[in-house]
Amino acid sequence: MKNNRPIGIFDSGLGGLTVFNQLRKILPQEKFIYFGDTAHLPYGDKSPETIIKYSQTISRFLFNKNIKLLIVGCNTASAVALNAIKNLSNIPVIDVINPCVQTAILETKNKSIGIIGTEATIASQAYQKTILHHDSSIDISVKACPLLVPIIEEGLLNHKATTEIIKLYLSSFKTSNLDTLILGCTHYPIIKTMIKKEIGYNINIIDSSIVTASYASDFLNQNTLIAEDNHIGKNKFYITDEAQKFNKISEIFLGYPLKNIHKIQL
Amino acid sequence: MKNNRPIGIFDSGLGGLTVFNQLRKILPQEKFIYFGDTAHLPYGDKSPETIIKYSQTISRFLFNKNIKLLIVGCNTASAVALNAIKNLSNIPVIDVINPCVQTAILETKNKSIGIIGTEATIASQAYQKTILHHDSSIDISVKACPLLVPIIEEGLLNHKATTEIIKLYLSSFKTSNLDTLILGCTHYPIIKTMIKKEIGYNINIIDSSIVTASYASDFLNQNTLIAEDNHIGKNKFYITDEAQKFNKISEIFLGYPLKNIHKIQL
Repeated sequence: MKNNRPIGIFDSGLGGLTVFNQLRKILPQEKFIYFGDTAHLPYGDKSPETIIKYSQTISRFLFNKNIKLLIVGCNTASAVALNAIKNLSNIPVIDVINPCVQTAILETKNKSIGIIGTEATIASQAYQKTILHHDSSIDISVKACPLLVPIIEEGLLNHKATTEIIKLYLSSFKTSNLDTLILGCTHYPIIKTMIKKEIGYNINIIDSSIVTASYASDFLNQNTLIAEDNHIGKNKFYITDEAQKFNKISEIFLGYPLKNIHKIQL
Repeated sequence: MKNNRPIGIFDSGLGGLTVFNQLRKILPQEKFIYFGDTAHLPYGDKSPETIIKYSQTISRFLFNKNIKLLIVGCNTASAVALNAIKNLSNIPVIDVINPCVQTAILETKNKSIGIIGTEATIASQAYQKTILHHDSSIDISVKACPLLVPIIEEGLLNHKATTEIIKLYLSSFKTSNLDTLILGCTHYPIIKTMIKKEIGYNINIIDSSIVTASYASDFLNQNTLIAEDNHIGKNKFYITDEAQKFNKISEIFLGYPLKNIHKIQL
């Protein structure tokens, strides 16, 4: 049995486009509905109640679009609102944290994992708690990297300033003994090569966009939810506020500007 | 006649502390009440209606504290809500835009003025319109510098990354013929020396913290609103949300952490 219903993805902004981009590559026959809550970004500054409220409203909207799978492409919503979203419906929900943590635990050889993310993600301890829940013997190093999101959104992908900031944040990891680093922010895959260059090629990087997309693809295959091979994949984008810079940012994430964008208020 | 009533200053966040800091230096006998609307920052992303609503609520709160002067230490609120604030009371109100523009127009010799600010401030055209309102023959160059606020708040005040970002944003000004540059963001005085070094010492920098503080001091003196010489200056700080990083940021702006902070919801 094949299933041609769409896949929903949401994020507080456009960072989740890195996950969408990977999904698009490995599942060309699928229809995707991307929702960026751009009026309320960043979620990291909001209270848990507010994040749950926004996440539930968006999830309901996407469930009503008859999606077969919901991907929470936002670290803050994954950390704070996952159960509240799952309680709304029987439609399966995949977040960005669990797939990365499971992969990191499987792949680390010396049980030493590093995590980088925004200030809010690191402070929430969502990754740390999920790792320790699965394996309490893992040694965890964390580093909040607040400048990486603005510098990526400014498009400075091969700029000296970006190199300097990556050095500043990640130099301590070079002398630690970790063998696995989780990119705990959906923006970071964009500068993965620069990060690799700084921390060294012997450290395995867990890229949330690749891992989450591959996890979602496996899930669809295992549950016979995949679309027919000859189904024509389509994309639809919803945002809650429009700013001129979103075109620039989507070009950074996708390599092309977003089309078929619908602005709505929820 | 002397007047010992307090002076109110508000900003969406802590950037207005650069103005407070200058005022504190030149008016040691005054009592200041600083209000940072940290729950709602940045204002630049909000609609004019919302900015007016927040600005009026805060202004009413400060007017009720029996202040003798209100300083709007926020570029966005100055651009959008100044008249709405003035309509609330007969207490005098000083913004950050008008003093800078008047000073820049007085000081430019070749009638060529540059403005740097956040994306929202530059897009609002508040400085541009105010300059042209006073003198339509002025040649204006603008540059939005979205990374400067986050890089200052990260404390990278003498870092290579900051030098690279300043070069990126300001290099075009070096080849233009402007003789006066307005720092259209209350954060920027913190990196004034680095900016000066990049654009050259022949360009006159209009520092909103110095200009606004000096304008306010002149106003108090001219209107016999200054406090008695032996009056003991005090500071009181209100914020609407607390984040760990605010202590770090206030140390960057003031050289010391904020004390006597009250967190309130308005």
